[in-house]
Amino acid sequence: MRDHHEHHLRERLTGLAATYRDDLLTDVVPFWLRHAVDREQGGFQFCLDRDGTVIDTDKGMWQHGRFTWLLSTLVDQVERRSEWLETAQHGIEFIRRHGFDTDGRAFFLLARDGRPLVKRRYVFTEAFHTAAFAAYARAASDERSRDEAMALFDLMLRYLGTPGLLPPKVDPRVRPSKGLVIPMILIVTAQVLRQVAPDPDRLTALIDGWIDEIERDFMKEEFRAVLETVGPGGEFLDHFGGRTVCPGHAIEAGWFVLEEARFRGGDRRLVDLGTRIIDWMLEWGWGAEHGGIIYYRDVKGLPATEYWHDMKFWWPHNEAIIGTLMAFEATGDPKYLDWHAKVHEWSYAHFPDPEYGEWFGYLHRDGRLSSRLKGNIWKGPFHLPRMLLVSWQVCERILASSVEAAPQRG
Amino acid sequence: MRDHHEHHLRERLTGLAATYRDDLLTDVVPFWLRHAVDREQGGFQFCLDRDGTVIDTDKGMWQHGRFTWLLSTLVDQVERRSEWLETAQHGIEFIRRHGFDTDGRAFFLLARDGRPLVKRRYVFTEAFHTAAFAAYARAASDERSRDEAMALFDLMLRYLGTPGLLPPKVDPRVRPSKGLVIPMILIVTAQVLRQVAPDPDRLTALIDGWIDEIERDFMKEEFRAVLETVGPGGEFLDHFGGRTVCPGHAIEAGWFVLEEARFRGGDRRLVDLGTRIIDWMLEWGWGAEHGGIIYYRDVKGLPATEYWHDMKFWWPHNEAIIGTLMAFEATGDPKYLDWHAKVHEWSYAHFPDPEYGEWFGYLHRDGRLSSRLKGNIWKGPFHLPRMLLVSWQVCERILASSVEAAPQRG
Repeated sequence: MRDHHEHHLRERLTGLAATYRDDLLTDVVPFWLRHAVDREQGGFQFCLDRDGTVIDTDKGMWQHGRFTWLLSTLVDQVERRSEWLETAQHGIEFIRRHGFDTDGRAFFLLARDGRPLVKRRYVFTEAFHTAAFAAYARAASDERSRDEAMALFDLMLRYLGTPGLLPPKVDPRVRPSKGLVIPMILIVTAQVLRQVAPDPDRLTALIDGWIDEIERDFMKEEFRAVLETVGPGGEFLDHFGGRTVCPGHAIEAGWFVLEEARFRGGDRRLVDLGTRIIDWMLEWGWGAEHGGIIYYRDVKGLPATEYWHDMKFWWPHNEAIIGTLMAFEATGDPKYLDWHAKVHEWSYAHFPDPEYGEWFGYLHRDGRLSSRLKGNIWKGPFHLPRMLLVSWQVCERILASSVEAAPQRG
Repeated sequence: MRDHHEHHLRERLTGLAATYRDDLLTDVVPFWLRHAVDREQGGFQFCLDRDGTVIDTDKGMWQHGRFTWLLSTLVDQVERRSEWLETAQHGIEFIRRHGFDTDGRAFFLLARDGRPLVKRRYVFTEAFHTAAFAAYARAASDERSRDEAMALFDLMLRYLGTPGLLPPKVDPRVRPSKGLVIPMILIVTAQVLRQVAPDPDRLTALIDGWIDEIERDFMKEEFRAVLETVGPGGEFLDHFGGRTVCPGHAIEAGWFVLEEARFRGGDRRLVDLGTRIIDWMLEWGWGAEHGGIIYYRDVKGLPATEYWHDMKFWWPHNEAIIGTLMAFEATGDPKYLDWHAKVHEWSYAHFPDPEYGEWFGYLHRDGRLSSRLKGNIWKGPFHLPRMLLVSWQVCERILASSVEAAPQRG
């Protein structure tokens, strides 16, 4: 009986690994390489119609950092394919030439020719560029990129750590608050930077602090939920924003914690923490009526105020596929395989575009298509290919470890 | 045959007038008076659940100006009801005490106790306060309010007319642009202010300029559409924003123009212009599959990028009910009665809440409810009660004029 289950599990993981690998290497990465590279004016054009036609030439810089990170990571972790390395370099060069203001901060949106259109008050673009420079430093053995990544990360820390440098929209004297997104983005950026930084222990210590902050201030046992916005000491803010949960976002935080647990050789406290986040937020996220992961919910069951609160976006599903697989890897608990199957099946039944490849991004609550858009300033080659890469790797690791373990059980 | 039609039309308009009047006076205005007035800390709380429960105590200032305008207008145009006048005064006092920063600009969002949370870079709050002060000046014969309205309007003009005072999000050196919303808000605000200003001709001349700007720069014959965003000289911007139309918003502009035509005794050029806008934008807005007015469309038929592009919000329907009725009043063309019937029937079949009154605000493309929310910082006692008031008045005017006209036709 055990052997039967074991055999069935191996078959399933083998099939999943092949699906994720093939989708990554023969569908998703080629889609963006074919349509998004601007050979004339540098950089990328990510605003794509269903068939890959560029429908807006403006250049969203989040996606520039993210695609450059992805290609560099593929070179480093999958195969030293020259097209990937050259396109990563193409991204690095455009970011270097046009991506930064004179104060060292990154622009958010550029015109096709690189002139700046929008600079935002947040430092998320800087985070994606940090990851891009760090991953490219490994892929190309490029010390300059490594130094740029470290300098940019320190700039982020300085802006985030110096009151007044990034004035929030809501007056902090009247309603001080902080967002889950900050420790999250810092954790994942530091995890990438740690692979090339000369001081990895400093980054590990910083990651510890941000994980502690999430556990202490954003996780609320009384709601069994991870909140998106709290007071500076974790105070519950009984307003629209303070009651909002974004299940896909918190599940993403959950697998960042599991990744950290794995980096530390299976740290039990972090495994418990990461799986608790994932347990809680799958319950909040999964749609009872139509399936899929809802975008926002209110922890008191009150109406959410964002118009798209009940839509099904591609990326929370990407994060939940990773989160459930990594939770299974970390615990062996079959409930996570069941969750993974639910999220995987729903996603594959609704998001992929059978005609032109890649995934659609925006569905209604009941799974019907809302927009045929393939890319914009928010959707690009990131959540989906990252999911495919990470999930393929997780499947391969589980398969490899069960082979190693097999003789003991035999 | 003609008499039969005439009789049928009179019956229909009489019924509509009663519906709009009763909904206004026995449902919508009482709903907000009952639930939104903050007797303890002043002002209003507009963030309401379906049954009127306050679910966020923050005070959105757009709605403060708008509700104060509404109540003052009811006093002035419907009946000198003391509850309305006192509540308008309650609004004026809160706006005066807490609504403005030291530079004279308005805050966008306050905490319940009046402390400022958010100030935005746009001057829309100032426009709603101008209308509130102007209408209150008439309702209460209050000269101070009149002077405040005029000063605030001039502040708006100064901010909008001085480059650099309101830096736009998109760098104007790289992508200069302007929005339809600016001439629109100025027209309707000037129309209200003109009722009390000592220099109405100056306002009429300004309105002329803004109407000309809409016709010259935002109306595009090649698309039969009114664009939301164009270059400074009306250039078409072939990007997501430049291709976006918001049919409900443009129809609102259309009836502002028809209102101006009426003010000028039936100016034919303005009637033609206003009805052309309404003709074009009903075609863009009306949903072929599910009915109702869609939120955004792309004039090239490309995917829109706002997530809620295909939702059905309450307010475009309010504007289209007014627009079609006023177009019928101005032209006598029965096609507008047919359009009005379509929009009215769809709206009344989907938006009203039979249990707790008022209208729901947010429906999916197919008409299903997305949120049970009755109010937030965007939805309050404005579009719906304004529609009910204006449409009731239009019906009464058509009925009165057809009585006058009857002998000639008899």
